[in-house]
Amino acid sequence: MDDVLTIGKQVLASQPFSLLLHAELLYFSQGRAEIKVPIQPELKQQHGFVHGGVISYAADNALTFAGGSVLGPGVVTSEFKINYLRPARGDFLVAKATVIYSSKTQAVCRCDVFMSEEGKESLCATSQGTISKLPETPDSRTED
Amino acid sequence: MDDVLTIGKQVLASQPFSLLLHAELLYFSQGRAEIKVPIQPELKQQHGFVHGGVISYAADNALTFAGGSVLGPGVVTSEFKINYLRPARGDFLVAKATVIYSSKTQAVCRCDVFMSEEGKESLCATSQGTISKLPETPDSRTED
Amino acid sequence: MDDVLTIGKQVLASQPFSLLLHAELLYFSQGRAEIKVPIQPELKQQHGFVHGGVISYAADNALTFAGGSVLGPGVVTSEFKINYLRPARGDFLVAKATVIYSSKTQAVCRCDVFMSEEGKESLCATSQGTISKLPETPDSRTED
Amino acid sequence: MDDVLTIGKQVLASQPFSLLLHAELLYFSQGRAEIKVPIQPELKQQHGFVHGGVISYAADNALTFAGGSVLGPGVVTSEFKINYLRPARGDFLVAKATVIYSSKTQAVCRCDVFMSEEGKESLCATSQGTISKLPETPDSRTED
Repeated sequence: MDDVLTIGKQVLASQPFSLLLHAELLYFSQGRAEIKVPIQPELKQQHGFVHGGVISYAADNALTFAGGSVLGPGVVTSEFKINYLRPARGDFLVAKATVIYSSKTQAVCRCDVFMSEEGKESLCATSQGTISKLPETPDSRTED
Repeated sequence: MDDVLTIGKQVLASQPFSLLLHAELLYFSQGRAEIKVPIQPELKQQHGFVHGGVISYAADNALTFAGGSVLGPGVVTSEFKINYLRPARGDFLVAKATVIYSSKTQAVCRCDVFMSEEGKESLCATSQGTISKLPETPDSRTED
Repeated sequence: MDDVLTIGKQVLASQPFSLLLHAELLYFSQGRAEIKVPIQPELKQQHGFVHGGVISYAADNALTFAGGSVLGPGVVTSEFKINYLRPARGDFLVAKATVIYSSKTQAVCRCDVFMSEEGKESLCATSQGTISKLPETPDSRTED
Repeated sequence: MDDVLTIGKQVLASQPFSLLLHAELLYFSQGRAEIKVPIQPELKQQHGFVHGGVISYAADNALTFAGGSVLGPGVVTSEFKINYLRPARGDFLVAKATVIYSSKTQAVCRCDVFMSEEGKESLCATSQGTISKLPETPDSRTED
């Protein structure tokens, strides 16, 4: 019985980069998506914190899934902006994205990224971006 | 003989996430930095293009290095914004960042990300962000 | 008896550009600010909608006031990003800003801009930005 | 003989808000636009500098004109991001925008805003954004 979350998990599992980062889709429904990334040693920078690139990956991907939840699977992130708030460490990251507004072709979404350390979540980054539906052509492809 | 590029390469080599992505510092001087990321299969999304998270990593890191070239090594990316322009594929990415303006504590930088395919470079993303100097305290740490 | 809102109204009233636009501070407290801009004919673009520059003014200023509510009066907007969602028209705009995170020197804030038409509010833009405390020097000045 | 600049000037002159700010289109050609805003007392904030909202207006509008130069007149600014670099003062602002990339429906543009004081220009803000072509329907309208 394929529900929305199962389909979303299959999409995430078909992204080699998401597999490399062991990302997991925690939640996926109309207008919302949550992606978890375990904080493993290879995701860090030179001072032991999570690399900003991992945080931006999590934000970008959760934004895309949130947009895709209202626009359909053929979507790309057109642009996004992120503010890093705190150095991230702990057990895992969770990027929580919601759709703020959507038209037929675009969705503007917001995503907060939390770090979880010993069961306590703190906000470590916040982002906002535009997800665009790809034109429906035989060779249309999603970017990420 | 440690020149600026050599020191920059050592910083990049001390970032486990940059090692995971096989990133390489191509150029590093006062106000400029270029980072190369080979396009390997594990950096892709479900349609064979480079995952947006890899592109944002390259932009973020090149922005940080450019900012660090004028502010010193103890810096973090406070925020950035990226527009994805084309699906990225080919042999490698090169993120080219320059400092637009800097004060004692911050630098505003711009970064264009190119994909290189059979020797031909095309622009695939453009970004802009703020790099901040960390306060000089005994426990100050860079974020990425 | 000068409360926080009264002080905020005095600051807004000392901005000639805010007077030109007849902006009004509706709400001002720790971590929150709301600014209203009546939609008058001279604030429009060529198709009868509110000019994007008016919407970005409202967002920028509400972001600055929200940041100032936690950092003190000597603040500037360092940067912000805005997504326009719908053409704006109606009786007035209200920009509602909240602080997402603050340190001693910076606050990251979010602002939604609503249009009000015949008593009904709809979201017409959403924005996110960084407010910075000015260094405490004799000649420190706020930017906006 | 209507050239491109003349047509652009007519568009700007049909924007009441641009008239209120005495904005002038200095340059307009395929992929480029420059808008000048004289620094008059009513455009300032409480410390005598140009209000950030004026700078963001100039950036937003120059971005839109640059996008319109390649996409046609029916365009809107979908989103943009701006970094303020220096408090602005002097005789006038000039916002200089260029198209970085365009497809059939969108253009990603960059805009630097300069202040001119006694004949000397200095960069006071830099911005980046997306301009979108409106769908060609009978009632399509530009936002700004």
